[in-house]
Amino acid sequence: MTNVSKDALVQELVSIVGKEWVVTEREYMLSYLQDETPEPVRPKAANNLILVKPSSTGEVSKILRAANQARVPVFPVGGRTGLVSACVPTIPGIILSLERMKKLEVDRENLMVVAEAGVTLGDLLRACDEAGLFFPPHPGDEGAQVGGLIATNAGGVRAVKYGVMRNYVKGVEVVLASGKVLNLGGKLIKDNAGYSLLHLVIGSEGTLCVITKAIIKLHPKSEHSVTIIVPFSGRHEALQAVQKILLSGVVPLAIEYVEPDEVNLSAAHLNEKWPVQVGGAQLFIILNAESEEELLVSCEKVSGVCSEIGAGEPVLAETREEQDRVLRIRSNIYTALKPQLIDILDVTVPPSKLGDLMDAVEEIAEKYGVHLPVYGHAGDGNLHVHVMKEEGKAPDYVAKVKSEIYETGIRLGGVITGEHGVGAIRTQELTKATDEAELNLMQGIKKLFDPNNILNPGKVIT
Amino acid sequence: MTNVSKDALVQELVSIVGKEWVVTEREYMLSYLQDETPEPVRPKAANNLILVKPSSTGEVSKILRAANQARVPVFPVGGRTGLVSACVPTIPGIILSLERMKKLEVDRENLMVVAEAGVTLGDLLRACDEAGLFFPPHPGDEGAQVGGLIATNAGGVRAVKYGVMRNYVKGVEVVLASGKVLNLGGKLIKDNAGYSLLHLVIGSEGTLCVITKAIIKLHPKSEHSVTIIVPFSGRHEALQAVQKILLSGVVPLAIEYVEPDEVNLSAAHLNEKWPVQVGGAQLFIILNAESEEELLVSCEKVSGVCSEIGAGEPVLAETREEQDRVLRIRSNIYTALKPQLIDILDVTVPPSKLGDLMDAVEEIAEKYGVHLPVYGHAGDGNLHVHVMKEEGKAPDYVAKVKSEIYETGIRLGGVITGEHGVGAIRTQELTKATDEAELNLMQGIKKLFDPNNILNPGKVIT
Repeated sequence: MTNVSKDALVQELVSIVGKEWVVTEREYMLSYLQDETPEPVRPKAANNLILVKPSSTGEVSKILRAANQARVPVFPVGGRTGLVSACVPTIPGIILSLERMKKLEVDRENLMVVAEAGVTLGDLLRACDEAGLFFPPHPGDEGAQVGGLIATNAGGVRAVKYGVMRNYVKGVEVVLASGKVLNLGGKLIKDNAGYSLLHLVIGSEGTLCVITKAIIKLHPKSEHSVTIIVPFSGRHEALQAVQKILLSGVVPLAIEYVEPDEVNLSAAHLNEKWPVQVGGAQLFIILNAESEEELLVSCEKVSGVCSEIGAGEPVLAETREEQDRVLRIRSNIYTALKPQLIDILDVTVPPSKLGDLMDAVEEIAEKYGVHLPVYGHAGDGNLHVHVMKEEGKAPDYVAKVKSEIYETGIRLGGVITGEHGVGAIRTQELTKATDEAELNLMQGIKKLFDPNNILNPGKVIT
Repeated sequence: MTNVSKDALVQELVSIVGKEWVVTEREYMLSYLQDETPEPVRPKAANNLILVKPSSTGEVSKILRAANQARVPVFPVGGRTGLVSACVPTIPGIILSLERMKKLEVDRENLMVVAEAGVTLGDLLRACDEAGLFFPPHPGDEGAQVGGLIATNAGGVRAVKYGVMRNYVKGVEVVLASGKVLNLGGKLIKDNAGYSLLHLVIGSEGTLCVITKAIIKLHPKSEHSVTIIVPFSGRHEALQAVQKILLSGVVPLAIEYVEPDEVNLSAAHLNEKWPVQVGGAQLFIILNAESEEELLVSCEKVSGVCSEIGAGEPVLAETREEQDRVLRIRSNIYTALKPQLIDILDVTVPPSKLGDLMDAVEEIAEKYGVHLPVYGHAGDGNLHVHVMKEEGKAPDYVAKVKSEIYETGIRLGGVITGEHGVGAIRTQELTKATDEAELNLMQGIKKLFDPNNILNPGKVIT
């Protein structure tokens, strides 16, 4: 911390948010020092941190103004559910938690919700549901917060039909490093008034400004939905089915690719049972519709396509409880694998290249004699490859395996990250995979928004 | 033109694209000197212009490098179908027409199309249709070109269900002012690799870079669609129906608001007849569906909602021909009004505020004793207000009327432009309506991308 003593800074922060919302003792901020990044690749949090919890945009503004004047780094944090340590405070500074800012107002007339940054995904889903509306994206952990969902352009399952977070965010209130509050966008379906700073902020991982509030588009609630699990003999049959389903005119909410080992592990971890035990590869498809008739038509089309390819008997989850249960098992594969996990990748390729990517991952696994469990969002070309701890093996395979997977993804027309973002742990990979002129533009944009580099320094662009 | 004589520049351009693709005689470039902006507000094109028609990205790159070194302005043009003179060359320089770059490749496996900038909307729609796929946005004039559609983030009808251009563009190839070629995004449904320069380019109206190629997401073709025209006694009944339809779970492809005078005028202009002659306000609703059953369910829901509000008998257009015919009448209201038109506004407000905006427009019309015909994309809150020539009236009402409409739109939570963009004729309004800090960021971004201000100078940000 440069222009100010820690004591003076603490005093200033106390004067802004009140004594009880400024934490300086490390033992009371432990859970703020990491996100869900696997331990082996997680960077260590710095010493000399101050945790601050503002309750309003005005307080956020004052904190940033003070930090900017003092040249003190600020690390905005949400639910800390990320997988690339985007919110980890890696140098001394202020941890800015938005958790107290949780006002939420559903606007049924405009099919939108106005939510402060600290509203959790769980709260958002419940409030929409109670208002008879529906927020489709489901990036897994319902402890995620709105600010973080936008800062990371969260994806997850249920993105096939309606897209990722970017497609839902119509407006944001943000605070610049200077303390200046800006409103970008609004309760608007169309907005062409100048360059879209809104879309620049979405996915900027807390490095350009602090998101304090958002306007999010909703859909009317689909009363009718079904989850279908279809077993296939192998991955290529399963992926062929994905393509044929998408071309059939049915647009599922989600098409997930899973293999039995991982779903069974997750089910066991939750003390549940995965309903389909046959097939080396499985698709997990969520369909929704306005009416029972429409759902039936879609369901029959999907079954027809799959059976043409020689799929096994599909299993249907029809009640809300059953559907929630299988989605929970799917969402917990990560948690189940985590103890043995070194890193989870989210290389994303054109959907038609997903099979090639999976073949290449298998070859890489064989080449290095390691286990690389995969599952992914098959409708999006987004594959999660897990680099695991290997008993009795020197850890030098990790870097090699990851580097080969990244190179393969890029060769297939993909990107190093489709949903988890860059954070602290993929900055080198981003630099390597990105054209220098593009990087220069990104660095220039960072400098424009945050000339003193106080906002989440060391993340995304370094 | 600063660092080079016109002759030397012409010679250099000829060496890049060949003699027949460099035009210096004004009489052979007349149609490149304007777009569809109404004559009374259209800026005059400068003298001393050179029209160049490259055939490849490599040629675009060489042209920009030469222009940048010589500090010569470059005005990229597409189909010149815009309404705010975004492509009009207002100072001496190079008109860069992408019309020869019209390669087009449909990728059925990924439900995407790769199109060069000069591909027309008409060609794009036809190619997708032939491949059994569907590109939903329809911004009216099918002479628009892909580069322009992206540069202006085009909207139009059919945006209610799937959104505007931004939601479809997954990747672009662009040329920076320096001549450097960049590829942003890709055939990707998810991409979180750094700041989204892709989304910054979308809607930047040719001021940040020249778009040479794009990857555009498609949908499977909906074989089943219907257009419904519903008469209402007045605008508030019609707009109440819009809201109830959207909350009912039906998501129409388009919901347009029209009034009989304007559609009849357009129909007469086309030598056609508008099918509904009752109701002071009408909704024009396009529904599409995967199956006949689903379409029927949606159709019944829409009719039910409208009849609850006291709407008149809906008229259905079911064949492709009938539907095309009514859409053509709707799309030609502008052309029919044009001879008497001074300006067409596209103020956009939260959808629930559209009635308030229309009431205010009516009051403004009464206050100034003028006629302000309106129609608009009711599902998007996007209203087109037409400021008309008024026989025997001093023209000082124009500025006052426009300024009151803009102020009302902003007061209602809207923006000065939802779809037409800023171009050359709304820069003052953008400046007035935008926070200074936001403008500074936009100006900084412009400078980063185009330090010598050669790309479409005088547009968007001045």
